[in-house]
Order: sequence, then structure tokens, then C-alpha cells
Amino acid sequence: MRNDEEYMRLAIANAKKAADSDEVPVGCVIIDKNGDVISEAYNTGEHGKNAMEHAEVKAMREAAEKLGQPRLWDCEMYVTLEPCAMCAAGIAMMRIKRVIFGAENEKGGAVINGVKYFESATCNHKPEVTSGVLKNECGEILSTFFKNKR
Amino acid sequence: MRNDEEYMRLAIANAKKAADSDEVPVGCVIIDKNGDVISEAYNTGEHGKNAMEHAEVKAMREAAEKLGQPRLWDCEMYVTLEPCAMCAAGIAMMRIKRVIFGAENEKGGAVINGVKYFESATCNHKPEVTSGVLKNECGEILSTFFKNKR
Repeated sequence: MRNDEEYMRLAIANAKKAADSDEVPVGCVIIDKNGDVISEAYNTGEHGKNAMEHAEVKAMREAAEKLGQPRLWDCEMYVTLEPCAMCAAGIAMMRIKRVIFGAENEKGGAVINGVKYFESATCNHKPEVTSGVLKNECGEILSTFFKNKR
Repeated sequence: MRNDEEYMRLAIANAKKAADSDEVPVGCVIIDKNGDVISEAYNTGEHGKNAMEHAEVKAMREAAEKLGQPRLWDCEMYVTLEPCAMCAAGIAMMRIKRVIFGAENEKGGAVINGVKYFESATCNHKPEVTSGVLKNECGEILSTFFKNKR
């Protein structure tokens, strides 16, 4: 099994693919209980089929298809940006065991910001959360992307 | 254009299809600005590909594909049950203009219960909300389903 930073580098590589496609650069990787990468994805909300195509949702969908089961017990998710409320609630619904994210998202995050979904009374599955893994690199991809947009 | 109850009856018909497939009976219909139904869907979270396959997410995805655009400005959503946090955040992300729901969901809802997502500080699009349309019929399908499960 590799360590958190190594998996996050793979998530970052996915975020860079998003930037190359003019999409908000967020990348995500899901590993199974053996530490094997079972899915990787990046955000395609703008130019994809719909605005809900966040990296986390896409990676969870692909992982569930690969495992042939509706939930992802024992799986861990690495994502470059703090998940939003949609993704956080999806993570709880899918029973992801642990979530590791890089950069904090003060405006749109829902884990340590916003509605802090996992701490809310109606959340019925609270994953273990690790924040700030390679946060500078994760954040820089985003700030560079938005700087170039201006 | 038909009225709220007529569209909700179509959402209820979808919820019944979910029950017939042994899925939690929630149904959803999306109409465009002309009042034409552009998508209808029901929950397939248990026996479908993944637990995130809620009626609302499926209907929004289908509507976006049909319209060929990532967001659903000017569209309205009819759903038999109060949306959860995942769906509420998805609704905001997709810029749905108005959400009409039937039964209230005290345990898992996120509109008038739980995190009340649309009223939260990080929500950047607040749809018009109408609650309680045909709420008894919408709720009865669910209570009958869970009674038969016991």
C-alpha cells in the first residue's frame, strides 16, 4: 500500500487533466481495502453532460460499477479539493470509509466548511477525514486556473 | 400548462414503479419553461448501479442530456419526497428554478429539515420551494413500502 501523498499525487494528475480540458481542476482517486486504485476521475461539470459531474461523483460511480455493488464499504477517497455538499452527502450514502482531501474550500466546501455535512444530525455515515494532504499543490492548480481565466 | 397536482401525479406514478422494483419509492419529474415534461425518473439506489441513483439526480441528468446543456435554468422539478442533501446541492448546482415536493423527510431531508441546504451560506442558487403537494399520497407509498418490508 502506498502512502497518502502518493495517492494524492495521482489525484493531482487527474486535476491537471481537468485543467487541460478547461474544467475546474479537481481530481479524485478511490482505493479499495487492499490499497489498489479502483477508479480515478476529474471534474467535467462545464463541458460534460451536466454540472453535477464532479470528480468525486464520477469516481464513486465508476468504483461501484467496477466492484458490482451499490456501496463502497472499506474504500478510501483521495480528492484534491474539500468536497461540496452534493459530494459529501454522496460519500456518506456510498459508505466511503475514509476521505482524504488536499485544499480547503471555504466558499463551497461542506466537510470542514459550510454545512459540515458529516457532523450534521441527518448524516447517517461519518467517514474518517484527513485534510490538508499536499494542500499547497492542490490549491495552486486551482488558483493558477482561475488566474488564467481572468 | 398543467397544475402542480397533475405533475405530482406523474411523479407518484414513477414512485410506484420504484416500489414495483423493490426500490425506495421516490419519483421525480422535470418540466421545461413551457411546462413540457422533459424527464421522469425513480430511485434505483439499491438494485441499480450505485446508491446515489436517486430519482432527482437521474431526472436532472436526463434533462440536461435532452436539452444538451450542463444546467437547467427555467426548469422545475416535482418530486414525491423532500430532497436529501446530495440532491438539494445538485438542484442548486443545476440551477433548477423551482422545486415542488410532496412528503416531508424528517430523517433525511435537506430542504426544510436537516442542513436546510438552500438557506445555508455556501448555497449559491436558491430555488423557489413549494412543499406538501399531494403529501398524503406521496407519504403513503413510502409508509406502505416500509410496512411491507418489516
